[in-house]
This record gives sequence, structure tokens and C-alpha cells, in this order.
Amino acid sequence: MKTQTNQSSILSKGAATRDAIVLAALKLAETGGLEGLSIGNVAERVGMSKSGVFAHFGSREDLQLAVLKAATENFSEAVFYPAIKLKRGLPRLRAVLENMIEFYQGLANGCVILSASHEFDDQPGPVRDAVLAYLRQLRSELVRAARYAVEAGELDPQVDAEQFGFECFGIFLAVHHDLRALRDPDSAARGRSAFTRLLKRSIPVSNLLSNQSE
Amino acid sequence: MKTQTNQSSILSKGAATRDAIVLAALKLAETGGLEGLSIGNVAERVGMSKSGVFAHFGSREDLQLAVLKAATENFSEAVFYPAIKLKRGLPRLRAVLENMIEFYQGLANGCVILSASHEFDDQPGPVRDAVLAYLRQLRSELVRAARYAVEAGELDPQVDAEQFGFECFGIFLAVHHDLRALRDPDSAARGRSAFTRLLKRSIPVSNLLSNQSE
Repeated sequence: MKTQTNQSSILSKGAATRDAIVLAALKLAETGGLEGLSIGNVAERVGMSKSGVFAHFGSREDLQLAVLKAATENFSEAVFYPAIKLKRGLPRLRAVLENMIEFYQGLANGCVILSASHEFDDQPGPVRDAVLAYLRQLRSELVRAARYAVEAGELDPQVDAEQFGFECFGIFLAVHHDLRALRDPDSAARGRSAFTRLLKRSIPVSNLLSNQSE
Repeated sequence: MKTQTNQSSILSKGAATRDAIVLAALKLAETGGLEGLSIGNVAERVGMSKSGVFAHFGSREDLQLAVLKAATENFSEAVFYPAIKLKRGLPRLRAVLENMIEFYQGLANGCVILSASHEFDDQPGPVRDAVLAYLRQLRSELVRAARYAVEAGELDPQVDAEQFGFECFGIFLAVHHDLRALRDPDSAARGRSAFTRLLKRSIPVSNLLSNQSE
């Protein structure tokens, strides 16, 4: 906008500074988690004074919420938005898995969202609420895709979409774990194979080999 | 020992104090992770001076290692040791799953080991090494049990034990996630159902529904 006023210019500059702070804080959080963030270490990282950072975020919690939001947007943008362009049901689910693997492979450091699920599981408050809301949204997308796949005849009508979502998420977690914690080069292949096997099991099991596990 | 010398009495007292410090630190770590530990907050929790804690742990890292060791011993004692009494192969695997579910259900707070896998995935050093060693040991127990199950004819000879261990661990992670992060009351049932379904899939899939996922 060539004709922007001084007012909007100031706003834009403020927004740009805020974005720079969030980006720096996100990098810090990828290593040390949201709990590792402080106004002080973020100010140092971004080369500002603490009061300068305070002008944008009134509290450490506000900053943590902004960083979490940025992390969830990055994840959605990399994993879910490209998948939405595909046919719903299995094609979309496959794309989500592939995008998730690529996203985790591309992370220089850890996943802020999954780390936060551990950091805040015992700490009620706005950050935990935001983490939970995103994790529930993520899960519901998987469950919804499974329902579509059933409706489209791609999966057996007897498939329990909630159970499918649980198992699918378990694969996500295992891929992330093997990639990030174990640094296992086979993790992507194992994730793909597990997903293929999950797809194959379309009929709920009632009693096979389950004399004591049900 | 009624006839213990002053020397051994002093040693015992020292060991008891050390144990009390580790126990207090473990409780703190269950909420705030190993990264949330400091000589200061542990001293406060256990009602000692910082120098008193320093007399037992020369550094924060020593303390973190001791707490991690206590956490892994608790997990092994609750999950693996009772299972070893059972027939190896599937009976043992089933017991590991059940014990793991009970262990996670019984935790007042989070799992220090899984949290540490996130906290230290980007921090090389003795704590990361210890976390990794335990996670690898845990995985290898699952893989070994799967191999036994194959040898005993409980699972199909074509079962890939490494893949089985990966998928089994994914179920553990999903149960922990749903219990601890989502507080979902269905998590144990979903974990059992997923395990039963994992057992059912004993033959590797080559091409079913996998036009783009292999």
C-alpha cells in the first residue's frame, strides 16, 4: 500500500516487531519448550530491551500463547492446509501423514506443540487450554477423515472412527519419537508401514488373540 | 542390622537423605520436568539448605540423572519386572501393556521419562544419553518379546519384530497422551483395542490400499 498513513505505518511496524519477537521466541521454544521462555531470554535473542518486549507482550504467558499460536499455524499450514485440497477421506489422510512426516523431518529442533502437551499436562490455565484445544482439533480432523472414508466406502462400515483416530495419532507420536528422540532413520518408513497396516484393519476385532486384553 | 558401626550408620543416614532428596525432586519433575529442577527448588521442597543438597549432588545435572534413574526404576518395577514372571512372548507383552496402562493411570502427574525425551532431544549430554539408553532398552524389550512370540508360533513368521515394536510403542505413547494430555477416560480401552488389532495383523502388507503410501 503506497498510500498508507503514518498511523497504519506505525501499526505495521509494531506488528512486524511483534512477529520478529514471536519468531525468535519460537526458535527458543523449539529447544527449551514454552517453559524455557522468559521475557528476558527472548529480549536477548531478538536484541531488544526487556521493556521493549513487554510493550508487545504484557506477560510471559501472553508470549507463550503467541508462540503456541505460531507453532500451531506452522503445523496446520504444513500438514493440514495442503491436504484439504485433496479429495476427502483416504487421499486426504494419506497426505496428512506424508506432510506430518516431512514436517517433523524438516524441524531443526523439537515440536513445540507435543512438548507443550507434556509441559502443561499438570498446569491448568490458558496455555494448557490452548494446547488442548489444538490437540483436540487435530484429533477431530483425523476422526472426521476416517468417517468420510467410511462413507465413501474406502474403509469398512464397521470401522470405529474414534479408534482409528487414536491409532493414527499413535503413529504420529511414534514417528515423532523415533525421529526426534531416537534419531532413527527408519522412522518415516515405519510410520508409512504402520499407516498402511492400520488401513488394512478395517473390521473391528472382538476376540482374536485377546483372551485377557479386552 | 543391630550391630552396625557408627561408620555404616553415617553411611545409611547419608543414603537415606539422598533418597529423600531424589524422591522430592522426582515429585517436582513429574510436574515441571527435569528441566524444572534446580538445587534451590529441590532444597526448598525437601526442607534443606542448598549446600546440604550440594553435599549429595555436585551439580544440577547429577541431580537430574539421579531423578531419571529413579523414574526408570519405578517404570521398570511397575511395568517390566512383573511381566518377566510370565511366559515370554505374548503373555509377557500383554502384561507389559496392562502394567503400562495401570502405571500411567496411577501417576498423579506426568511421566518424567517421556517428558525428558522431549526436553532433551536437542540437548546432547549425559542426561540425553541416559534418556536415550532407557528408551532404547524399553523398545528392545518389546522387539524381543515380539521375536519370542514369532518363535513360539504365537505370531506369524512374517511379522517384522522391529515394526511390531514401533507400533506397540505408538500405542503406549497414544495411551499416555490421551490419559495425561486429553484426560480421556476411554484411553485405556482404546489402547487395549489397538493392541488387540496390532496382534491380529500378523502378516506384512505389501500393496493393499497403499498406492501412494509405500
